[in-house]
Amino acid sequence: MAINYPNGKKFVPSKNSATKETGTPKKKKDFSFSNRGKTLEDELNETNDYYLQLGLAVIHKKPVPLQIVKVEYPSRSAAVIREAYFQAPSTTDYNGVWNGRYIDFEAKETENKTSFPLKNIHDHQIHHMSQVVKQAGTAFMIIRFSSWQRYFIMPFKELEFFWNRMITGGRKSVTLQEIEETSFEIIPGAFPRINYLPLLKKF
Amino acid sequence: MAINYPNGKKFVPSKNSATKETGTPKKKKDFSFSNRGKTLEDELNETNDYYLQLGLAVIHKKPVPLQIVKVEYPSRSAAVIREAYFQAPSTTDYNGVWNGRYIDFEAKETENKTSFPLKNIHDHQIHHMSQVVKQAGTAFMIIRFSSWQRYFIMPFKELEFFWNRMITGGRKSVTLQEIEETSFEIIPGAFPRINYLPLLKKF
Repeated sequence: MAINYPNGKKFVPSKNSATKETGTPKKKKDFSFSNRGKTLEDELNETNDYYLQLGLAVIHKKPVPLQIVKVEYPSRSAAVIREAYFQAPSTTDYNGVWNGRYIDFEAKETENKTSFPLKNIHDHQIHHMSQVVKQAGTAFMIIRFSSWQRYFIMPFKELEFFWNRMITGGRKSVTLQEIEETSFEIIPGAFPRINYLPLLKKF
Repeated sequence: MAINYPNGKKFVPSKNSATKETGTPKKKKDFSFSNRGKTLEDELNETNDYYLQLGLAVIHKKPVPLQIVKVEYPSRSAAVIREAYFQAPSTTDYNGVWNGRYIDFEAKETENKTSFPLKNIHDHQIHHMSQVVKQAGTAFMIIRFSSWQRYFIMPFKELEFFWNRMITGGRKSVTLQEIEETSFEIIPGAFPRINYLPLLKKF
Protein backbone atom coordinates (compact mmCIF):
# COMPACT_ATOMS: atom_id res chain seq x y z
CA MET A 1 0.00 0.00 0.00
CA ALA A 2 1.35 3.40 -0.95
CA ILE A 3 1.72 5.84 1.89
CA ASN A 4 1.58 9.52 1.13
CA TYR A 5 2.88 12.35 3.23
CA PRO A 6 0.39 15.06 4.12
CA ASN A 7 1.82 17.18 1.32
CA GLY A 8 0.76 14.54 -1.19
CA LYS A 9 4.27 13.41 -1.97
CA LYS A 10 4.68 9.68 -2.08
CA PHE A 11 6.41 7.99 0.79
CA VAL A 12 9.28 5.86 -0.45
CA PRO A 13 10.84 3.82 2.32
CA SER A 14 14.60 3.85 2.26
CA LYS A 15 16.41 1.18 4.18
CA ASN A 16 19.87 2.55 4.28
CA SER A 17 20.13 6.28 4.17
CA ALA A 18 18.66 6.74 7.59
CA THR A 19 20.43 4.14 9.63
CA LYS A 20 24.00 4.54 8.55
CA GLU A 21 26.38 7.40 8.99
CA THR A 22 27.80 6.74 5.57
CA GLY A 23 25.13 8.46 3.54
CA THR A 24 26.55 11.38 1.59
CA PRO A 25 23.88 14.02 1.14
CA LYS A 26 24.83 16.88 -1.12
CA LYS A 27 27.06 18.96 1.05
CA LYS A 28 26.62 22.69 0.66
CA LYS A 29 29.87 24.38 -0.17
CA ASP A 30 30.84 27.98 0.11
CA PHE A 31 29.20 28.79 3.41
CA SER A 32 30.65 31.83 5.07
CA PHE A 33 33.46 31.12 7.46
CA SER A 34 32.12 33.74 9.85
CA ASN A 35 29.03 31.65 10.45
CA ARG A 36 30.93 28.66 11.75
CA GLY A 37 30.28 28.16 15.40
CA LYS A 38 27.08 30.15 15.43
CA THR A 39 24.10 28.43 16.91
CA LEU A 40 20.87 28.18 14.99
CA GLU A 41 19.42 30.56 17.57
CA ASP A 42 22.10 33.16 16.77
CA GLU A 43 21.39 32.83 13.08
CA LEU A 44 17.64 33.14 13.51
CA ASN A 45 17.96 36.14 15.83
CA GLU A 46 20.08 37.88 13.20
CA THR A 47 17.57 37.01 10.51
CA ASN A 48 14.66 38.26 12.60
CA ASP A 49 16.54 41.47 13.38
CA TYR A 50 17.06 41.93 9.66
CA TYR A 51 13.33 41.42 9.00
CA LEU A 52 12.50 43.88 11.77
CA GLN A 53 14.90 46.58 10.56
CA LEU A 54 13.55 46.37 7.03
CA GLY A 55 9.93 46.32 8.17
CA LEU A 56 9.38 42.89 6.62
CA ALA A 57 8.09 41.07 9.70
CA VAL A 58 7.91 41.32 13.48
CA ILE A 59 9.14 37.99 14.84
CA HIS A 60 10.85 37.55 18.20
CA LYS A 61 12.25 34.71 20.24
CA LYS A 62 10.40 34.31 23.50
CA PRO A 63 12.40 34.55 26.71
CA VAL A 64 13.19 31.29 28.48
CA PRO A 65 10.54 30.68 31.14
CA LEU A 66 11.96 30.61 34.66
CA GLN A 67 10.42 29.93 38.01
CA ILE A 68 11.78 32.63 40.29
CA VAL A 69 12.11 31.57 43.93
CA LYS A 70 14.30 34.18 45.59
CA VAL A 71 15.03 37.80 44.75
CA GLU A 72 17.31 40.15 46.64
CA TYR A 73 16.98 43.92 46.56
CA PRO A 74 20.38 45.39 47.37
CA SER A 75 20.07 49.06 48.17
CA ARG A 76 20.77 51.40 45.27
CA SER A 77 21.16 48.53 42.81
CA ALA A 78 18.98 46.45 40.58
CA ALA A 79 17.10 43.48 41.99
CA VAL A 80 19.15 40.27 41.85
CA ILE A 81 17.53 36.89 41.33
CA ARG A 82 19.32 34.46 43.65
CA GLU A 83 17.33 31.30 43.06
CA ALA A 84 15.40 30.33 39.94
CA TYR A 85 14.79 27.21 37.88
CA PHE A 86 14.30 26.56 34.22
CA GLN A 87 10.74 25.63 33.28
CA ALA A 88 9.60 23.58 30.33
CA PRO A 89 8.22 25.99 27.73
CA SER A 90 4.52 25.49 27.00
CA THR A 91 4.78 26.98 23.53
CA THR A 92 7.31 27.25 20.74
CA ASP A 93 10.29 29.58 20.88
CA TYR A 94 9.45 32.03 18.10
CA ASN A 95 6.32 33.86 17.07
CA GLY A 96 5.19 37.03 15.43
CA VAL A 97 3.40 38.57 12.48
CA TRP A 98 4.21 38.82 8.80
CA ASN A 99 1.82 40.48 6.36
CA GLY A 100 -1.11 39.89 8.68
CA ARG A 101 -0.15 36.25 9.06
CA TYR A 102 0.53 34.76 12.46
CA ILE A 103 3.88 32.94 12.41
CA ASP A 104 4.85 30.36 15.04
CA PHE A 105 7.81 28.02 14.98
CA GLU A 106 10.29 25.95 16.87
CA ALA A 107 13.94 25.74 15.81
CA LYS A 108 16.15 22.72 16.40
CA GLU A 109 19.57 21.70 15.26
CA THR A 110 21.13 18.26 15.22
CA GLU A 111 24.66 16.95 14.84
CA ASN A 112 23.20 13.77 13.35
CA LYS A 113 24.07 13.34 9.72
CA THR A 114 21.22 11.18 8.52
CA SER A 115 18.17 11.80 10.66
CA PHE A 116 16.49 14.26 12.99
CA PRO A 117 15.62 12.79 16.43
CA LEU A 118 12.11 13.68 17.55
CA LYS A 119 13.14 13.59 21.20
CA ASN A 120 14.12 17.22 20.66
CA ILE A 121 10.44 18.15 20.58
CA HIS A 122 8.01 18.11 23.51
CA ASP A 123 4.45 16.90 23.13
CA HIS A 124 3.08 20.17 24.51
CA GLN A 125 4.86 21.96 21.68
CA ILE A 126 3.15 19.69 19.17
CA HIS A 127 -0.13 20.39 20.93
CA HIS A 128 0.55 24.13 20.81
CA MET A 129 1.33 24.10 17.09
CA SER A 130 -1.80 22.08 16.46
CA GLN A 131 -3.84 24.76 18.24
CA VAL A 132 -2.13 27.47 16.21
CA VAL A 133 -2.99 25.77 12.94
CA LYS A 134 -6.63 25.44 14.07
CA GLN A 135 -6.65 29.23 14.52
CA ALA A 136 -5.39 29.62 10.94
CA GLY A 137 -1.88 30.49 12.06
CA THR A 138 1.23 29.26 10.27
CA ALA A 139 3.23 26.75 12.34
CA PHE A 140 6.39 24.93 11.39
CA MET A 141 9.77 23.73 12.54
CA ILE A 142 13.14 24.93 11.31
CA ILE A 143 15.72 22.14 11.36
CA ARG A 144 19.45 22.59 10.98
CA PHE A 145 21.69 19.67 10.11
CA SER A 146 24.78 21.27 11.54
CA SER A 147 27.22 18.82 9.96
CA TRP A 148 25.94 19.64 6.49
CA GLN A 149 24.97 23.28 7.11
CA ARG A 150 21.60 22.40 5.64
CA TYR A 151 18.37 24.02 6.81
CA PHE A 152 14.79 22.92 6.33
CA ILE A 153 11.33 24.24 7.07
CA MET A 154 9.01 21.43 8.00
CA PRO A 155 5.35 22.51 7.95
CA PHE A 156 3.43 21.46 11.03
CA LYS A 157 1.27 19.01 9.09
CA GLU A 158 4.38 17.03 8.13
CA LEU A 159 5.82 17.23 11.62
CA GLU A 160 2.51 15.95 12.97
CA PHE A 161 2.66 13.01 10.56
CA PHE A 162 6.10 11.95 11.81
CA TRP A 163 5.14 12.63 15.41
CA ASN A 164 2.05 10.42 15.13
CA ARG A 165 4.13 7.72 13.47
CA MET A 166 6.42 7.76 16.51
CA ILE A 167 3.73 7.70 19.17
CA THR A 168 2.01 4.84 17.40
CA GLY A 169 5.18 2.77 17.66
CA GLY A 170 7.13 3.87 14.60
CA ARG A 171 10.63 5.25 14.39
CA LYS A 172 11.75 7.94 16.80
CA SER A 173 13.37 10.12 14.17
CA VAL A 174 12.82 11.52 10.72
CA THR A 175 15.36 10.56 8.11
CA LEU A 176 17.11 13.24 6.11
CA GLN A 177 15.60 11.74 2.98
CA GLU A 178 12.11 12.04 4.43
CA ILE A 179 12.86 15.65 5.30
CA GLU A 180 14.10 16.31 1.78
CA GLU A 181 10.83 14.88 0.49
CA THR A 182 8.44 16.69 2.80
CA SER A 183 10.08 19.96 3.79
CA PHE A 184 11.36 23.11 2.12
CA GLU A 185 15.09 23.61 2.08
CA ILE A 186 16.40 27.03 3.02
CA ILE A 187 19.55 27.79 1.08
CA PRO A 188 21.69 29.80 3.51
CA GLY A 189 22.71 33.22 2.30
CA ALA A 190 25.01 35.96 3.43
CA PHE A 191 22.45 38.35 4.85
CA PRO A 192 20.07 37.34 6.14
CA ARG A 193 21.61 33.97 6.78
CA ILE A 194 18.36 31.99 7.10
CA ASN A 195 15.86 33.69 4.84
CA TYR A 196 12.85 31.56 5.72
CA LEU A 197 9.96 33.96 5.03
CA PRO A 198 9.85 33.54 1.22
CA LEU A 199 9.41 29.78 1.64
CA LEU A 200 6.25 30.26 3.70
CA LYS A 201 4.48 31.37 0.53
CA LYS A 202 4.68 27.75 -0.58
CA PHE A 203 2.65 26.49 2.37
CA MET B 1 -10.51 74.29 16.40
CA ALA B 2 -12.09 70.93 16.93
CA ILE B 3 -9.71 68.11 17.66
CA ASN B 4 -10.75 64.61 16.75
CA TYR B 5 -9.39 61.37 18.13
CA PRO B 6 -8.13 58.86 15.56
CA ASN B 7 -11.44 57.01 15.89
CA GLY B 8 -13.25 60.09 14.61
CA LYS B 9 -14.86 60.90 17.93
CA LYS B 10 -14.69 64.54 18.86
CA PHE B 11 -12.27 65.60 21.53
CA VAL B 12 -14.04 67.51 24.28
CA PRO B 13 -11.64 68.94 26.81
CA SER B 14 -12.71 68.45 30.40
CA LYS B 15 -11.05 70.62 32.99
CA ASN B 16 -11.94 68.86 36.16
CA SER B 17 -12.56 65.18 35.83
CA ALA B 18 -8.94 64.38 35.23
CA THR B 19 -7.18 66.39 37.85
CA LYS B 20 -9.27 65.77 40.91
CA GLU B 21 -9.85 62.59 42.82
CA THR B 22 -13.45 63.56 43.41
CA GLY B 23 -14.80 62.49 40.06
CA THR B 24 -17.37 59.74 40.48
CA PRO B 25 -17.41 57.52 37.42
CA LYS B 26 -20.16 54.92 37.40
CA LYS B 27 -18.87 52.35 39.81
CA LYS B 28 -19.49 48.80 38.77
CA LYS B 29 -21.41 46.90 41.39
CA ASP B 30 -21.80 43.21 41.86
CA PHE B 31 -18.31 42.12 40.93
CA SER B 32 -17.44 38.72 42.24
CA PHE B 33 -15.86 38.74 45.64
CA SER B 34 -13.48 36.01 44.56
CA ASN B 35 -11.88 38.36 42.09
CA ARG B 36 -10.84 40.86 44.70
CA GLY B 37 -7.10 40.93 45.11
CA LYS B 38 -6.40 39.33 41.75
CA THR B 39 -3.97 41.16 39.57
CA LEU B 40 -4.87 42.05 36.03
CA GLU B 41 -2.26 39.48 34.97
CA ASP B 42 -4.08 36.75 36.92
CA GLU B 43 -7.36 37.69 35.33
CA LEU B 44 -5.93 37.74 31.82
CA ASN B 45 -4.14 34.44 32.30
CA GLU B 46 -7.43 32.87 33.36
CA THR B 47 -9.20 34.39 30.39
CA ASN B 48 -6.52 33.19 27.98
CA ASP B 49 -6.67 29.70 29.51
CA TYR B 50 -10.40 29.73 28.94
CA TYR B 51 -9.92 30.75 25.30
CA LEU B 52 -7.33 28.02 24.87
CA GLN B 53 -9.45 25.28 26.44
CA LEU B 54 -12.42 26.16 24.25
CA GLY B 55 -10.30 26.44 21.11
CA LEU B 56 -11.25 30.10 20.69
CA ALA B 57 -7.75 31.58 20.54
CA VAL B 58 -4.11 30.81 21.33
CA ILE B 59 -2.79 33.74 23.35
CA HIS B 60 -0.03 33.50 25.93
CA LYS B 61 1.82 35.83 28.22
CA LYS B 62 5.50 35.94 27.38
CA PRO B 63 7.96 35.00 30.11
CA VAL B 64 9.77 37.86 31.82
CA PRO B 65 13.12 38.36 30.09
CA LEU B 66 16.08 37.73 32.39
CA GLN B 67 19.79 38.08 31.94
CA ILE B 68 21.27 34.93 33.43
CA VAL B 69 24.75 35.36 34.87
CA LYS B 70 25.43 32.33 37.02
CA VAL B 71 24.02 28.81 36.95
CA GLU B 72 24.90 25.96 39.28
CA TYR B 73 24.49 22.30 38.40
CA PRO B 74 24.11 20.36 41.64
CA SER B 75 24.55 16.67 41.01
CA ARG B 76 21.31 14.74 40.59
CA SER B 77 19.21 17.87 40.68
CA ALA B 78 17.93 20.49 38.33
CA ALA B 79 20.15 23.40 37.35
CA VAL B 80 19.81 26.35 39.72
CA ILE B 81 20.15 29.92 38.54
CA ARG B 82 22.11 31.78 41.22
CA GLU B 83 22.47 35.19 39.63
CA ALA B 84 20.16 36.82 37.14
CA TYR B 85 18.72 40.25 36.45
CA PHE B 86 15.45 41.51 35.10
CA GLN B 87 15.68 42.96 31.61
CA ALA B 88 13.43 45.55 30.02
CA PRO B 89 11.06 43.74 27.67
CA SER B 90 11.47 44.75 24.03
CA THR B 91 7.93 43.78 23.12
CA THR B 92 4.51 43.65 24.74
CA ASP B 93 3.55 41.00 27.28
CA TYR B 94 0.87 39.09 25.38
CA ASN B 95 0.57 37.80 21.86
CA GLY B 96 -1.01 35.03 19.87
CA VAL B 97 -3.50 34.15 17.18
CA TRP B 98 -7.27 34.36 16.93
CA ASN B 99 -9.09 33.35 13.76
CA GLY B 100 -5.99 33.91 11.67
CA ARG B 101 -5.50 37.32 13.22
CA TYR B 102 -2.28 38.22 14.98
CA ILE B 103 -3.08 39.64 18.44
CA ASP B 104 -0.56 41.69 20.44
CA PHE B 105 -1.20 43.67 23.58
CA GLU B 106 0.13 45.16 26.76
CA ALA B 107 -1.89 45.10 29.99
CA LYS B 108 -1.61 47.74 32.69
CA GLU B 109 -3.54 48.53 35.81
CA THR B 110 -3.66 51.73 37.79
CA GLU B 111 -4.86 52.68 41.25
CA ASN B 112 -5.53 56.18 39.95
CA LYS B 113 -9.19 57.03 39.87
CA THR B 114 -9.31 59.65 37.17
CA SER B 115 -6.46 59.07 34.74
CA PHE B 116 -4.04 56.51 33.38
CA PRO B 117 -0.36 57.54 33.68
CA LEU B 118 1.60 56.90 30.50
CA LYS B 119 4.81 56.35 32.45
CA ASN B 120 3.60 52.74 32.70
CA ILE B 121 4.47 52.27 29.03
CA HIS B 122 7.94 52.15 27.50
CA ASP B 123 8.72 53.78 24.19
CA HIS B 124 10.08 50.52 22.79
CA GLN B 125 6.68 48.96 23.44
CA ILE B 126 5.02 51.77 21.49
CA HIS B 127 7.55 51.17 18.73
CA HIS B 128 6.84 47.44 18.80
CA MET B 129 3.07 47.92 18.55
CA SER B 130 3.58 50.35 15.70
CA GLN B 131 5.56 47.69 13.83
CA VAL B 132 2.84 45.13 14.52
CA VAL B 133 0.14 47.38 13.08
CA LYS B 134 2.29 47.93 9.97
CA GLN B 135 2.31 44.14 9.51
CA ALA B 136 -1.51 44.15 9.70
CA GLY B 137 -1.51 42.76 13.21
CA THR B 138 -3.96 43.87 15.90
CA ALA B 139 -2.28 45.81 18.71
CA PHE B 140 -3.89 47.39 21.74
CA MET B 141 -3.60 48.02 25.45
CA ILE B 142 -5.86 46.64 28.16
CA ILE B 143 -6.22 49.09 31.04
CA ARG B 144 -7.70 48.29 34.43
CA PHE B 145 -8.82 51.03 36.77
CA SER B 146 -8.51 48.89 39.85
CA SER B 147 -10.43 51.24 42.13
CA TRP B 148 -13.49 51.07 39.89
CA GLN B 149 -13.01 47.54 38.56
CA ARG B 150 -13.37 49.00 35.10
CA TYR B 151 -11.52 47.60 32.09
CA PHE B 152 -10.85 49.15 28.70
CA ILE B 153 -9.32 48.13 25.42
CA MET B 154 -7.47 51.04 23.87
CA PRO B 155 -6.60 50.38 20.20
CA PHE B 156 -3.02 51.19 19.36
CA LYS B 157 -3.99 54.11 17.13
CA GLU B 158 -5.58 55.84 20.14
CA LEU B 159 -2.67 54.98 22.40
CA GLU B 160 -0.31 56.42 19.81
CA PHE B 161 -2.34 59.64 19.74
CA PHE B 162 -2.00 60.12 23.52
CA TRP B 163 1.64 59.04 23.44
CA ASN B 164 2.47 61.59 20.76
CA ARG B 165 0.59 64.24 22.71
CA MET B 166 2.84 63.50 25.67
CA ILE B 167 6.15 63.48 23.83
CA THR B 168 5.26 66.76 22.14
CA GLY B 169 4.86 68.39 25.53
CA GLY B 170 1.27 67.53 26.42
CA ARG B 171 -0.10 65.80 29.51
CA LYS B 172 1.61 62.68 30.81
CA SER B 173 -1.59 60.75 31.34
CA VAL B 174 -4.88 59.94 29.68
CA THR B 175 -7.98 60.97 31.56
CA LEU B 176 -10.66 58.43 32.30
CA GLN B 177 -13.07 60.52 30.29
CA GLU B 178 -10.73 60.41 27.28
CA ILE B 179 -10.51 56.67 27.68
CA GLU B 180 -14.29 56.37 27.83
CA GLU B 181 -14.45 58.35 24.60
CA THR B 182 -11.76 56.50 22.66
CA SER B 183 -11.62 52.96 24.00
CA PHE B 184 -13.93 49.96 24.30
CA GLU B 185 -15.08 49.06 27.78
CA ILE B 186 -14.91 45.42 28.77
CA ILE B 187 -17.73 44.59 31.15
CA PRO B 188 -16.21 42.04 33.55
CA GLY B 189 -18.05 38.73 33.68
CA ALA B 190 -17.92 35.61 35.78
CA PHE B 191 -16.12 33.34 33.34
CA PRO B 192 -14.09 34.41 31.57
CA ARG B 193 -13.55 37.45 33.70
CA ILE B 194 -12.12 39.72 30.99
CA ASN B 195 -13.78 38.67 27.75
CA TYR B 196 -11.84 40.97 25.43
CA LEU B 197 -11.94 39.04 22.14
CA PRO B 198 -15.49 40.01 21.07
CA LEU B 199 -14.55 43.69 21.31
CA LEU B 200 -11.76 43.28 18.78
CA LYS B 201 -14.38 42.86 16.08
CA LYS B 202 -15.12 46.55 16.52
CA PHE B 203 -11.60 47.61 15.56
